[in-house]
Amino acid sequence: MSASKKILLSESEIPRNYYNIQADMPNPMLPPLHPGTKQPIGPQDLAAIFPMELIKQEVSQERWIEIPDEVREIYKMYRPTPLYRAANLEKLLDTPAKIYYKYEGVSPAGSHKPNTAIAQAYYNKMEGAKRLTTETGAGQWGSALSFACSKFGLGCEIYMVKISYDQKPYRKIMMNTWGAEVIASPSTRTNSGRKILEQDPNSPGSLGIAISEAVEKAATTEGTNYSLGSVLNHVLLHQTIIGLEAEKQLALAGDFPDIVIAPFGGGSNFAGISFAFLRHNFQEGKNVRCIAVEPASCPKLTKGEFRYDFGDTAGLTPLIPMYTLGHTFVPEPIHAGGLRYHGAGAIISQLLKDKLIEASAVPQLECFEAGVKFAKTEGIITAPEATHGIAQVIREAQKAKVEGKQKTILFNLCGHGYFDMSAYQAYFNGELVDHELTHEELYSALEALDTPKIN
Amino acid sequence: MSASKKILLSESEIPRNYYNIQADMPNPMLPPLHPGTKQPIGPQDLAAIFPMELIKQEVSQERWIEIPDEVREIYKMYRPTPLYRAANLEKLLDTPAKIYYKYEGVSPAGSHKPNTAIAQAYYNKMEGAKRLTTETGAGQWGSALSFACSKFGLGCEIYMVKISYDQKPYRKIMMNTWGAEVIASPSTRTNSGRKILEQDPNSPGSLGIAISEAVEKAATTEGTNYSLGSVLNHVLLHQTIIGLEAEKQLALAGDFPDIVIAPFGGGSNFAGISFAFLRHNFQEGKNVRCIAVEPASCPKLTKGEFRYDFGDTAGLTPLIPMYTLGHTFVPEPIHAGGLRYHGAGAIISQLLKDKLIEASAVPQLECFEAGVKFAKTEGIITAPEATHGIAQVIREAQKAKVEGKQKTILFNLCGHGYFDMSAYQAYFNGELVDHELTHEELYSALEALDTPKIN
Repeated sequence: MSASKKILLSESEIPRNYYNIQADMPNPMLPPLHPGTKQPIGPQDLAAIFPMELIKQEVSQERWIEIPDEVREIYKMYRPTPLYRAANLEKLLDTPAKIYYKYEGVSPAGSHKPNTAIAQAYYNKMEGAKRLTTETGAGQWGSALSFACSKFGLGCEIYMVKISYDQKPYRKIMMNTWGAEVIASPSTRTNSGRKILEQDPNSPGSLGIAISEAVEKAATTEGTNYSLGSVLNHVLLHQTIIGLEAEKQLALAGDFPDIVIAPFGGGSNFAGISFAFLRHNFQEGKNVRCIAVEPASCPKLTKGEFRYDFGDTAGLTPLIPMYTLGHTFVPEPIHAGGLRYHGAGAIISQLLKDKLIEASAVPQLECFEAGVKFAKTEGIITAPEATHGIAQVIREAQKAKVEGKQKTILFNLCGHGYFDMSAYQAYFNGELVDHELTHEELYSALEALDTPKIN
Repeated sequence: MSASKKILLSESEIPRNYYNIQADMPNPMLPPLHPGTKQPIGPQDLAAIFPMELIKQEVSQERWIEIPDEVREIYKMYRPTPLYRAANLEKLLDTPAKIYYKYEGVSPAGSHKPNTAIAQAYYNKMEGAKRLTTETGAGQWGSALSFACSKFGLGCEIYMVKISYDQKPYRKIMMNTWGAEVIASPSTRTNSGRKILEQDPNSPGSLGIAISEAVEKAATTEGTNYSLGSVLNHVLLHQTIIGLEAEKQLALAGDFPDIVIAPFGGGSNFAGISFAFLRHNFQEGKNVRCIAVEPASCPKLTKGEFRYDFGDTAGLTPLIPMYTLGHTFVPEPIHAGGLRYHGAGAIISQLLKDKLIEASAVPQLECFEAGVKFAKTEGIITAPEATHGIAQVIREAQKAKVEGKQKTILFNLCGHGYFDMSAYQAYFNGELVDHELTHEELYSALEALDTPKIN
């Protein structure tokens, strides 16, 4: 009957720097390659669609990168976000483990995504961009960027996968409310879109197609840049503010984590909470276990191959050194849309390769069961993506009970589930099933790859 | 490009008492009457469905009523809520007015409703209730009570107006997720429901029918009580925590309001933000203008009559001294479902009668226009109910500009609009129109009343 403890910081304690893990990684990530020449790409290859400051951040070796005052000001709308001790969940699990969660669902867009959207909008604005393009699936990232662009007076043009555009109108209206233009993709606005529509006028679209459209529009339009919500190094960098805040909040509670957990799609959520703690591993020899949790239906970290692959389905982006299931891999339509991505960002892939982080794959039903337990004990109904983290937390807490060890577990609660109630409905109605991937389903896209291997 | 300033309190500053305005009202409210005898009701008339502590609060003359520690503990999940200075909205309006808003949308249920739901669940639990019933329309109140019951291990049985149950499933799933049972009303569970279904098996239901079912179930079931989300004095009392916090936060900013504004449905939102400031009017002769904002389509405060009327459509509740349009008044299906109620609570009606508060009626289109302005400047997409407050704020800020006066305006932002995006969609699509009520539409329910008049 008690509430879980909330640990707050004052606004003056919002971090003044992002933490750049590239400064501390034992082995640097491998360079992205130009898709044509297969040679490492340079800044000039990206200048058509990104501002120079973000290109610099992409490869910077500086440990701390200052957060501009203007960005910190916007962060103050919702940051510092609260850290909670999940006392009621602990009680339900009857575990000796202490469970903390950082809650990023308090942002206006409802997830951690604005942390990088605001920074990206700022740097673009500073370098003269008038408009940003991006792609979005279910709409989490698109709404974050719409919000950020509205704060900086930038135009925002969002290519939304057509089937989501038709079936999930509410995120679209949210983007419209913040002033963004939302276009069902494939569209007639771009060559990429027109080409698809010629072949299939009823194409439902895909994230890959939407990326192609957004990139093409940015590359061919003066004053328009492109923005991405995960995978890239600068995106992960901006999200480190989550873990840096959590570190201060845990210190207020006199605590430090043994285990840090986050759901894994492209890496922004996981990097956000874990990099600040990996830093202690690298710098002080601590041994914080950082666990990335992916859906069992899209197991790139646990069952994928570490090799070069494209970031998009169409194969237009630079080749990235990543754990991948192949860029043509089509995950099942699970409800955690934000985790249905074929590959992992370069930094995280390198960390996993070097066994500096762990990965876990969790089936969907276990995730929803965990999410409902969490709602009933902690009161927050979370996004399906976030339930993956909770499921892993429960696994670790149960393990701590069996072993009789008092572990401190921290996880990132990346967003609320207010736009995902139909997923909970399907779960309650027994409409969800777990399906074990066949070898063919899992590996056919990988086997079809002809991109460069890594020894 | 800057963010609006957020003013926070620490958890230790959560008020320790609710403010009971009945201690300070120049004229006390008139007593509710028994529907049969037309005599003032006593505690025993309510004991079948309410715990004694809430019945006491209903008529208490104590100025301060202590908030139980257990309730304050649960409040800490989301309280103190932030107060924002709406600097960007001020800039857009180019007004000399300072605009502040208290944001109650940060609660797990997404509105101010948990403030009383938690308290009611607590008092019921303490007096041995095992289960609570209530009615809900669109679902704001039902989800708040579901959340509160889950925190205290109480069963929760919610009669949801059938048309909302069918058309707006997401709030229902939210209640299910917290463990509540949600029943489409009219149902076969109660005599009231069965009677309606006999007459019309396809009845879409109404809030009045749902109230009848929930009250009947509580009155006839051992261990089951009934809970209401607005109108009653104890509900308004619990909401005063909003204004008491806002008062402290404004003091931190060195400020005090000239004008306090809130949307008006049954009174809980308005009472929540305004009573703490009316106290200064009553005790110190200050002159804070408190403005209740109702939809032009349901103008009980500005065009209703002050007389005794029933709280429900069916006429089963005690007779309440209220500004009313008649308990059979059927408002247009506007999107601010929480404001579609025929009458005002007894305390607020008395205050309005005594000209101690003001009322304003605002048409729907002006409200949505205000809501979109707010989302673009302040970043928060609000519930349609909340846009009524914003519209009035804009009116007052524009007036301040014309008059060249620096007013301080405070309003209560009662909830987010994540479950209301279809309303914004209808607005963007031009599907909403403002309709001026004819004399017949406005007054036929009032003219049909045979309840006691008040001189």
